[in-house]
Amino acid sequence: MWSVQDHLDDILAAVRPLDPIELNLLDAQGCVLVDDITVPLSLPPFDNSSMDGYAVRVTDVAGASEEFPAVLEVVGDVAAGQADPLSVGPGQAARIMTGAPLPPGAETVVPVEWTDGGLGEGPVAGMRARSLAPEGAEGQVHVYRPAEAGAHVRAQGSDVRSGDRALEAGTVLGPPQIALLAAIGRGKVRVRPRPRVVVLSTGSELVQPDEELGPGQIYDSNSFALTAAARDAGAIAYRVGAVADDAETLRSTIEDQLVRADLMVTTGGVSVGAYDVVKEALAHVADEDEPGSGVDFRKLAMQPGKPQGFGSIGPDHTPLLALPGNPVSSYVSFELFVRPAIRTLMGLPDVHRPTVTAVLAAQRPLSSPKGRRQFLRGTYSDGSVTPVGGSGSHLVAALAHADALIVVPEDTESVEPGTEVEVVLLG
Amino acid sequence: MWSVQDHLDDILAAVRPLDPIELNLLDAQGCVLVDDITVPLSLPPFDNSSMDGYAVRVTDVAGASEEFPAVLEVVGDVAAGQADPLSVGPGQAARIMTGAPLPPGAETVVPVEWTDGGLGEGPVAGMRARSLAPEGAEGQVHVYRPAEAGAHVRAQGSDVRSGDRALEAGTVLGPPQIALLAAIGRGKVRVRPRPRVVVLSTGSELVQPDEELGPGQIYDSNSFALTAAARDAGAIAYRVGAVADDAETLRSTIEDQLVRADLMVTTGGVSVGAYDVVKEALAHVADEDEPGSGVDFRKLAMQPGKPQGFGSIGPDHTPLLALPGNPVSSYVSFELFVRPAIRTLMGLPDVHRPTVTAVLAAQRPLSSPKGRRQFLRGTYSDGSVTPVGGSGSHLVAALAHADALIVVPEDTESVEPGTEVEVVLLG
Repeated sequence: MWSVQDHLDDILAAVRPLDPIELNLLDAQGCVLVDDITVPLSLPPFDNSSMDGYAVRVTDVAGASEEFPAVLEVVGDVAAGQADPLSVGPGQAARIMTGAPLPPGAETVVPVEWTDGGLGEGPVAGMRARSLAPEGAEGQVHVYRPAEAGAHVRAQGSDVRSGDRALEAGTVLGPPQIALLAAIGRGKVRVRPRPRVVVLSTGSELVQPDEELGPGQIYDSNSFALTAAARDAGAIAYRVGAVADDAETLRSTIEDQLVRADLMVTTGGVSVGAYDVVKEALAHVADEDEPGSGVDFRKLAMQPGKPQGFGSIGPDHTPLLALPGNPVSSYVSFELFVRPAIRTLMGLPDVHRPTVTAVLAAQRPLSSPKGRRQFLRGTYSDGSVTPVGGSGSHLVAALAHADALIVVPEDTESVEPGTEVEVVLLG
Repeated sequence: MWSVQDHLDDILAAVRPLDPIELNLLDAQGCVLVDDITVPLSLPPFDNSSMDGYAVRVTDVAGASEEFPAVLEVVGDVAAGQADPLSVGPGQAARIMTGAPLPPGAETVVPVEWTDGGLGEGPVAGMRARSLAPEGAEGQVHVYRPAEAGAHVRAQGSDVRSGDRALEAGTVLGPPQIALLAAIGRGKVRVRPRPRVVVLSTGSELVQPDEELGPGQIYDSNSFALTAAARDAGAIAYRVGAVADDAETLRSTIEDQLVRADLMVTTGGVSVGAYDVVKEALAHVADEDEPGSGVDFRKLAMQPGKPQGFGSIGPDHTPLLALPGNPVSSYVSFELFVRPAIRTLMGLPDVHRPTVTAVLAAQRPLSSPKGRRQFLRGTYSDGSVTPVGGSGSHLVAALAHADALIVVPEDTESVEPGTEVEVVLLG
């Protein structure tokens, strides 16, 4: 019997982060940066106005008030993106828009609300739209308040400077990191790609949803659940669906799928039955010339999810996890083993679900098989966890109402209500 | 001046959940179920074995032990998915696989590990693979332990029963809920679709990343950040990119894009400048025959993000949020207003980011403008929050290193280190 930890360690020791590729910025969302990113240009690239107003010299507005406004000659507009800004001499002002470069000669910006906007009728709330006055600003402006040097000016390099470290290798790219990369002009980045995960369920009893169920048949749910779970973990997941219990069919299906798989996940057929084809098909795929190839089937000291397979197949040694077929077993196995494998392939810093300690809220003690780590389904709220459904690994409905796994350690056979237990939060 | 809350309330009062559509199960991941789902068939649909073993009658194995095994006649195999199972008479056993229907006459299952597997050489670890013994089970089996009625049998309906409520309207479909829907045969579900969000930045100063920057120009980062943020919130987001400051171009671009938008987001051009084209282009789009149409521009008592626009445009009254153009202002505005709007369109129960109370860890007091709710960037850890960068709304680098917003209320002008503050966790 393998322990849960040993099996996980074995998987994580074998699975390596995928080779980096260059992706367009928005395609890299959620991925991990491979290189440190250095800022190629200072931000802002030039001194610019943080307000809509007038760019002026400090002395020209010193002491200005509503009673004794400074009256300045307006030399024109400086708009954002304007290539060749005006220059501002003594006694002059340029009407300036937010983000526009501070014109030569100007030392500060007075917001338009501190002026008459050139209209000669006291303080204004804003500028006249250009469409109403296409000639731009001209004539005189009355300024009613003084401004210090650099007021309402965002200095060149006040955000980041050329040569600064923008982001470190290993950063996960969320919206704010994407904002920074775009702002410094990076349209592409080298990241570890999302792994392509192929999900395949096995079992001659499995029927597609929406089809008619014959005697002895059930609907395939594992391939749906694990495809969704793989996407949730960050992967690009392909659902192959159910393959009948025939070793040759299974082997050729897996071989076909290898071309689009960075990781292969199967469910079912891994136990001690005569029709356990995954075990049969994969137990002997090891290439004698390729050390480390092949899939190893083992029993884990856990419940649910005792029978498990792990190894690699095909010319690229694609990792394969063979999970048990009971719906709850396969889902719990996914959470414990496949999700960390996917996140390791992505190079993510944090591959595990968060765990917390919670007080068991239950009517009766929980019982757990000796020598096996048990994962019961529960709902977590505010430091307490309540079991949902029983320990049966076929209880899909209870699973669908749970948001946590209650962990009962190997050496514990009974847990009293009110006791503290470890809980895995399913997010 | 509008308060943050009044502006948000105004948006949420106007934005309605999208009309439901029927989607394939995996396409509905992350979406909200519209109808209560009733279980059409019991799960399991029939009594079936939870182990690989032998289906037997209870009395035939009563008192069995290694010393005095019960010896039964094997009538054949019952595999999962087998349509016409054998029947088990007195003194007989059927070799049965996990998930296979319990054959008529059998009352219990003994695991194969409690038998000699028909080989006559004491307890076995598993069955012989079918490929090695294609004739199936025959001859005799020695059973070494008794089993109670129903042992290792999953009873019909023990998971859910026909007519039970499987999932309630309003449930968000994650992997376990998808598992349950597939298990009860639902290949399609009616959900509220992910909203299509068109993101458009404005500004003649904006240049695409990877292109060369001319004088007075900066890279467009808002359209990248907000497209990523919209996806993160659950939307299907389209980035249009930067439109120059020309009202007619902007108006026609928006009209073009309306066909694929459930929500329109613009950045820039909403303040008091003469070139603020969003305001100019949209302030007068209201159709007099259509009450409620048009975009309203307002000042909010917040920092960053004072100028904001909200309304609806086009024949379908598509909601439009016009955010300010400073990168931090637009991102904070997205978090506060657009994200809840997207999640309302999806019908999600929880539209807001989680907030917590944290102790301010800072060298100096924070200062905040009177009468405005300030949102500073910070990093949250373990009950304490540390400001990152200053309050400038152009500080993109600091934003990229933050994971929280520190909220300073309107009536607070200074926050001492060690004080408790409200923190929005950016997830």
